[in-house]
Amino acid sequence: MNIIDIITKKKNKEILSKEEIEYAINEYINGNIKDYQMSSLLMAICINKMNDEEILNLTNSMLNSGEKIDLSSIPGIKVDKHSTGGIGDKTTLILVPLVASLGVKVAKMSGRGLGYTGGTIDKLESIEGFNVALDRKDFTHEVMTIGASIVSQTGNLVPADKKLYALRDVSGTVESVALIASSIMSKKLASGADKFVIDVKVGSGALMKNLKDAKELAATMIKIGKNYNKEVICFLTNMDFPLGSNIGNGLEVIEAIDVLQDNGDENLTNLIVELATYMVSIGLNISIEKARKMVLENLKNGKAYKKLVEIINYQNGNIEKIAKSINKIDIYSDNEGYINSIDALEVGKFVHELGAGRSNKDDKIDYGVGVVLNKKINDYVLKGEKLLTIYYNKIIDFEKIKSAFSISKEKKENVKLIYEIINSNKI
Amino acid sequence: MNIIDIITKKKNKEILSKEEIEYAINEYINGNIKDYQMSSLLMAICINKMNDEEILNLTNSMLNSGEKIDLSSIPGIKVDKHSTGGIGDKTTLILVPLVASLGVKVAKMSGRGLGYTGGTIDKLESIEGFNVALDRKDFTHEVMTIGASIVSQTGNLVPADKKLYALRDVSGTVESVALIASSIMSKKLASGADKFVIDVKVGSGALMKNLKDAKELAATMIKIGKNYNKEVICFLTNMDFPLGSNIGNGLEVIEAIDVLQDNGDENLTNLIVELATYMVSIGLNISIEKARKMVLENLKNGKAYKKLVEIINYQNGNIEKIAKSINKIDIYSDNEGYINSIDALEVGKFVHELGAGRSNKDDKIDYGVGVVLNKKINDYVLKGEKLLTIYYNKIIDFEKIKSAFSISKEKKENVKLIYEIINSNKI
Repeated sequence: MNIIDIITKKKNKEILSKEEIEYAINEYINGNIKDYQMSSLLMAICINKMNDEEILNLTNSMLNSGEKIDLSSIPGIKVDKHSTGGIGDKTTLILVPLVASLGVKVAKMSGRGLGYTGGTIDKLESIEGFNVALDRKDFTHEVMTIGASIVSQTGNLVPADKKLYALRDVSGTVESVALIASSIMSKKLASGADKFVIDVKVGSGALMKNLKDAKELAATMIKIGKNYNKEVICFLTNMDFPLGSNIGNGLEVIEAIDVLQDNGDENLTNLIVELATYMVSIGLNISIEKARKMVLENLKNGKAYKKLVEIINYQNGNIEKIAKSINKIDIYSDNEGYINSIDALEVGKFVHELGAGRSNKDDKIDYGVGVVLNKKINDYVLKGEKLLTIYYNKIIDFEKIKSAFSISKEKKENVKLIYEIINSNKI
Repeated sequence: MNIIDIITKKKNKEILSKEEIEYAINEYINGNIKDYQMSSLLMAICINKMNDEEILNLTNSMLNSGEKIDLSSIPGIKVDKHSTGGIGDKTTLILVPLVASLGVKVAKMSGRGLGYTGGTIDKLESIEGFNVALDRKDFTHEVMTIGASIVSQTGNLVPADKKLYALRDVSGTVESVALIASSIMSKKLASGADKFVIDVKVGSGALMKNLKDAKELAATMIKIGKNYNKEVICFLTNMDFPLGSNIGNGLEVIEAIDVLQDNGDENLTNLIVELATYMVSIGLNISIEKARKMVLENLKNGKAYKKLVEIINYQNGNIEKIAKSINKIDIYSDNEGYINSIDALEVGKFVHELGAGRSNKDDKIDYGVGVVLNKKINDYVLKGEKLLTIYYNKIIDFEKIKSAFSISKEKKENVKLIYEIINSNKI
């Protein structure tokens, strides 16, 4: 077997065998296949696609490339969640304590971000003292006693994905259902949970720009899960505009606390309730209706918030000290009318310029900077009324954030936050 | 401008601008664009293709990446020939002296081979003492006085192609009309001739496996030539079976001499006559009929052979000493019937195993090894009759060469050597 023949097959739209896919992944990890060969193969996969069997074989080869976490010592059904990522997405910070407060075990491994803002781990590190690097024993112990833990990924989980993802990022081969689905699912399967709720973001601020591609990705991930007897539920949700009010690491932790104290942004809270409902339903094997009732209850009665405090305390964080810059400036509207859109991508680029994200692996994040939106989609705004507040530590062209807003005389119809919820019965 | 955006455009089947193509080529040469990015772009070009304008811009960017030879000090029309390469293709060795003997100037730069057998330069080096490394002054002087010279490519001609070709070879991105046409034509244009005859080989032993792709390549090269006001004539010729009787470096020089002494293989001689006819016709601006008559004459009267002797003498070669192994073995037929095919690719792999070609740039070639075919397509062979002679310096499984032959009761119909001759009037 040799890589040129494998590349040529995919170039000619042929189907790769299990052995060929395994060979490509294994020989790439051990360095016999070079980056310039793998990027050529990845591009051929991007354009000529893979069928279901090829995607299953790819996922399996990646999964087998490293360690797999064994959570079997923790009793009960372990539920994990994943989001394909977007601007202002702080759902993990809210969902983990919320569902844990209802008895669903969440042993959560998260990543740092290489995007417009940090990842969940970066956001948690904006809480003073918060320890994201628990050892395996401590991690398990926290899940057993408190019901949840969020740590940064440790060990040698799916090394193939680490190497492939880094290459895809610099070779223009990120956007591909086969490559995205196998990347996400190999990591989820390696992290040891039993059931998964995955939030596939769709829109200008997301990897998936349209609903058709997002549906295909969701269906593919559900099929992969099925192959491993793992239940996967996919949400398709709107990422044309930022999620919630706050964008920036510390600011997002603050907003997460607001939601857990039943004092959050309505859209964000609605999404959280639905995601949590499905996690609780599959985690406790109860009906959607019953789960939703319990979720709403624990947001109201303070139990969800209390669980967050427990987690932060266990992991040595100080909830009183969350990074938030003391420098702030308000931005006012130049026009009057309904807010028709707030471009998620533009907002993301703006907070990145403020220092909220990394461009390179070793960049430092400024945890305290970001924006807090004062107006949302379909809010009416007067000329001179406050649109948002910027928290900063360096001067940039603050006014340009206005171009992310489009304001019109008419209200925008049919703005949906959740497009669809897909489970294996639907595909 | 950045390479990820350029890769993504081609991935999405969009058209690249002149500036984007220039940027990709220039930044690749200076190392800012990495191999793994270029191979990803090359694969996107292989699959999603380029339109005529993109191909012209690519050719121009490559041509401008290095030095261009100026042959204007040599009076008259300089004609160059090129073959896309195949098994047993020794046409350059025959055509250059043949057309030079009729007054057509040929300042020929050739390459070494990284294929089943050596390139023209390797073949010439199987003549003892032959100097392929004349300096520019000597090269020009030889063309002015004798009418032709064949040297190895010197100077910094199309460095972009050197770097790209090496990458394409190891990343499964060789087969692409856009990439092949721009590679060939940028080198031809840089080498300074006025008119070109290009032999596009088609079949199992060639880069172009079918006539449709070969026609597309020919039409593309003719269009590129037109853009530079250079006349290009393309031959589409059969490479399902080896060209001529001898395959191997020294053996091919010997066969070239046979043809020039009017004692060569009929098929090979016919192809040579047609190629030479077109070279002479465009080189002297005379009719095809007149040119053909002159070509046939100079094969018969010994002038073509005499010109070869002059070139070899000028370049210090000893025509009496051409590499040919003293170890030989005859291979006999197991069956009786008409020879329906002699698989060029299999023969190529076989002589490569004997040591006639390189796998890596620094491999040494064994100039004396190869095969001499005793039977050709549609020859009738008896059981136990000699099929070929193998010249070797190491023992391999000699008998396996028989599998390249297929023998049947029926003669094969319609075996053409020249499929078509295309000039700009035909596209």
